[in-house]
Amino acid sequence: MSKNETKSPDRIPSREEDFSEWYIAVVRNAQMADYTEIKGCMVIKPYGFGIWELMREALDKRIKDTGHENAYFPLFVPESLLTKEAEHVEGFAPECAWVTHGGGQKLEERLAIRPTSEAIIGSLYAKWVQSYRDLPILINQWANVVRWEKRTRLFLRTSEFLWQEGHTVHRTAEEAQEETMKMLEVYREYLETELAIPAVDGMKSDAERFAGADKTYTVEALMQDGMALQSGTSHNLGQHFSKGFGIKFLDEDNTEKFGWTTSWGVSTRLIGALIMTHGDDNGLKVPPRVAPVQVVVVPIYKSGMEETLNEKVKSLVAELKAAGIRARADLRDTLRPGFKFTEWEVKGVPIRIELGPKDLEKGVVTAVRRDNREKTAVPDGEVVEYARQTLVSIQKDMYDAALKFREANTHSPKTWDEFKDVLENKRGFLYVPWDGTAETETAIKEETKATVRCVPLGPKGEVQPGDVDIFSGKPAKYRVLYARAY
Amino acid sequence: MSKNETKSPDRIPSREEDFSEWYIAVVRNAQMADYTEIKGCMVIKPYGFGIWELMREALDKRIKDTGHENAYFPLFVPESLLTKEAEHVEGFAPECAWVTHGGGQKLEERLAIRPTSEAIIGSLYAKWVQSYRDLPILINQWANVVRWEKRTRLFLRTSEFLWQEGHTVHRTAEEAQEETMKMLEVYREYLETELAIPAVDGMKSDAERFAGADKTYTVEALMQDGMALQSGTSHNLGQHFSKGFGIKFLDEDNTEKFGWTTSWGVSTRLIGALIMTHGDDNGLKVPPRVAPVQVVVVPIYKSGMEETLNEKVKSLVAELKAAGIRARADLRDTLRPGFKFTEWEVKGVPIRIELGPKDLEKGVVTAVRRDNREKTAVPDGEVVEYARQTLVSIQKDMYDAALKFREANTHSPKTWDEFKDVLENKRGFLYVPWDGTAETETAIKEETKATVRCVPLGPKGEVQPGDVDIFSGKPAKYRVLYARAY
Repeated sequence: MSKNETKSPDRIPSREEDFSEWYIAVVRNAQMADYTEIKGCMVIKPYGFGIWELMREALDKRIKDTGHENAYFPLFVPESLLTKEAEHVEGFAPECAWVTHGGGQKLEERLAIRPTSEAIIGSLYAKWVQSYRDLPILINQWANVVRWEKRTRLFLRTSEFLWQEGHTVHRTAEEAQEETMKMLEVYREYLETELAIPAVDGMKSDAERFAGADKTYTVEALMQDGMALQSGTSHNLGQHFSKGFGIKFLDEDNTEKFGWTTSWGVSTRLIGALIMTHGDDNGLKVPPRVAPVQVVVVPIYKSGMEETLNEKVKSLVAELKAAGIRARADLRDTLRPGFKFTEWEVKGVPIRIELGPKDLEKGVVTAVRRDNREKTAVPDGEVVEYARQTLVSIQKDMYDAALKFREANTHSPKTWDEFKDVLENKRGFLYVPWDGTAETETAIKEETKATVRCVPLGPKGEVQPGDVDIFSGKPAKYRVLYARAY
Repeated sequence: MSKNETKSPDRIPSREEDFSEWYIAVVRNAQMADYTEIKGCMVIKPYGFGIWELMREALDKRIKDTGHENAYFPLFVPESLLTKEAEHVEGFAPECAWVTHGGGQKLEERLAIRPTSEAIIGSLYAKWVQSYRDLPILINQWANVVRWEKRTRLFLRTSEFLWQEGHTVHRTAEEAQEETMKMLEVYREYLETELAIPAVDGMKSDAERFAGADKTYTVEALMQDGMALQSGTSHNLGQHFSKGFGIKFLDEDNTEKFGWTTSWGVSTRLIGALIMTHGDDNGLKVPPRVAPVQVVVVPIYKSGMEETLNEKVKSLVAELKAAGIRARADLRDTLRPGFKFTEWEVKGVPIRIELGPKDLEKGVVTAVRRDNREKTAVPDGEVVEYARQTLVSIQKDMYDAALKFREANTHSPKTWDEFKDVLENKRGFLYVPWDGTAETETAIKEETKATVRCVPLGPKGEVQPGDVDIFSGKPAKYRVLYARAY
């Protein structure tokens, strides 16, 4: 960590006071990211990027384990390519950034900076796919994308962001649907296991569908302010793009057919989800599995004992590291221990170990959990085992706490007035029957700002006998989750 | 690997016949990369990207081990920022791509896509640095950059490419110089250890200096056609950027001072270096340490024995993988073994293992080294140990072969006529005394297209008594390497 991070943090307002200001203050005080003078663009600072690196690694492994390979496609999308799929260009062109000059000359055709890569990749797949033997194509890329945003918020909405986007081509509609659902499940399990975020997996309504998709599926998480955050999407693109770009193959029966494509992605927005799911009024709480520092060891100096304490701290950190734990010693000698404690708390390091002269005397260290502030005196020889077990416990407890919060904040209003009352006074997920029409969805959105987040997969999304729409009173088609959303 | 890679490769010309065509044919036939319809931009296909992922991982570890952290900075450089360092803008503006419209509107100020990030990062560091306690700042980023190119060549020169760029700020000139040299040595050792490429580390002449640097250092490698390839650079930027962007700090003596900055980078160009250093007329040779597939196991089917052979191949691959070796089974049943052998040879997989009915009978497998085509019958139980040792040998032998080639192609012409003769008939490095003037360098370049690649570090770059410039006859200042270069 660069020493410039030693500045005293600005005050963080409580979540109750102003959730939005709390969020920004946490991001900035934890040295995760900051605004820049480039409109709408953020800088991801080393601590935030360290979390992203671990998040990326864990997801990349899952993407590869499910048979995909990484590649890299061009940043630029010529305008003529972007317009080949009508719904797609309509959805994305308004938020594109356009390159008009290069190498000192005006370009013959302007180039969009990719807002997503279906068009660029579709045009290449059209060349790569000839025969059914070339299928499936299972490729992912990690890249930056640009979508021009007027109102930005660190990690949640910035003009440039980082993401992964999978793009696949299949021989049949069934295989494409299977892939779409497989990757949705990868996302759900990944959020649960690595980020300790419980997410509802479900189908998007037509209004919230990806521009150019047959079906969009989503994993939706509930933030501590009762707002939903779309945390990842998986799209069955049907034959929209294969027809737009000419992705055709000669099938075994010797007839030419269009391929069936999918795409799926998650972005640095997930860092925002992580902060708003787990943070508290003292700052961040990073789930151990994606924490760049899992254990920080802070000496409490006493005059004349500095060297002894430093040696002990260093050997402890070496021991933890040897056991595969991401540990760090904080030996800065110009700062008081209390200042350091606050700093590591803001940064959400799961376990802090304090080591003072009294601990040394007793042959123990004092361990403090970030998630519940529990203090334990751990005997000298047991620190590695304590850390190993406690990191697992913290990961589990953070997930459980988030799940409990979501359950407590998922409401089933029985009437339209109750629906509005919940949104006004509690927010959260509203689990209600929906008639499946865009009219109802729009009317509800206009009156309450809440949208259909998804039709949950499985029985939860199915109507029960007698279900009528909460708003229109017409027979229901699905049970859905409404919420106000980021 | 997607099955679309089963197409029969186009013919690869010999290196002798046409080195340039050989290079492009290898890149395309090995499914590493291809051109796209986006002018100057390439797609890096999964096999090429797999090599890049391993290359990146190995370098990233070294960057972190030397105390740096990764971060991510914006893609866009507002024109007003780019122009703050005069020499820098002069060097880069002509090859910039410019964004002029975003979100449906003309921008007030046009934005360059980063050709390199000194300007954007400098403007942020100016805010982050206040006190000597904030120094050093040691940050790296992995990113895409754009430099508009008219004539492109896959990996070597494309409008968009991938790279890492380190950007550091130091308290003193000495510390900045130390950092510059430390990272140069990281690059030299990395090329040697991971890519089996011997590189000469040295200082650039003023003509080849980075736009805005005090001193540029380089690692230069020699390709098989006798042309040099600049493979990585490390710049001591002095106070050019700290003055341009206002990176100031209050020093311990209570006076305000400008920081000293460095930057250093390598790019996907290194993949080109790897191909042109090691490839032969049959295709690629990938050094084992960065080979996505280190061992491929190919069954030689006999009617009725397919299942037995497949089982054996699978268990062998599982064994190799368990030992940490990147192994793959090639069980495609519609292709002849000879076709598969050629394909894996083009892709440069270090070891191919063939397993036929006769091998099965004898309790052996047939192992073939890609680098020297040596065939060995390896007893069943010894395959893992054979592979482990042989991968180490191949890595070493590839480096030795490349070093031998470079030594055989480093000439010390004694006269100007000899100098021209070497360039005309043999190419390679020309190790000669130089008077240190731009006039001589320019004159030689105009007559022979050769440029000063570097002043080698250490005694090799120092003049000896009586040394006179090979061209001007004036007293020499350095001994340098000339070459024609990519």
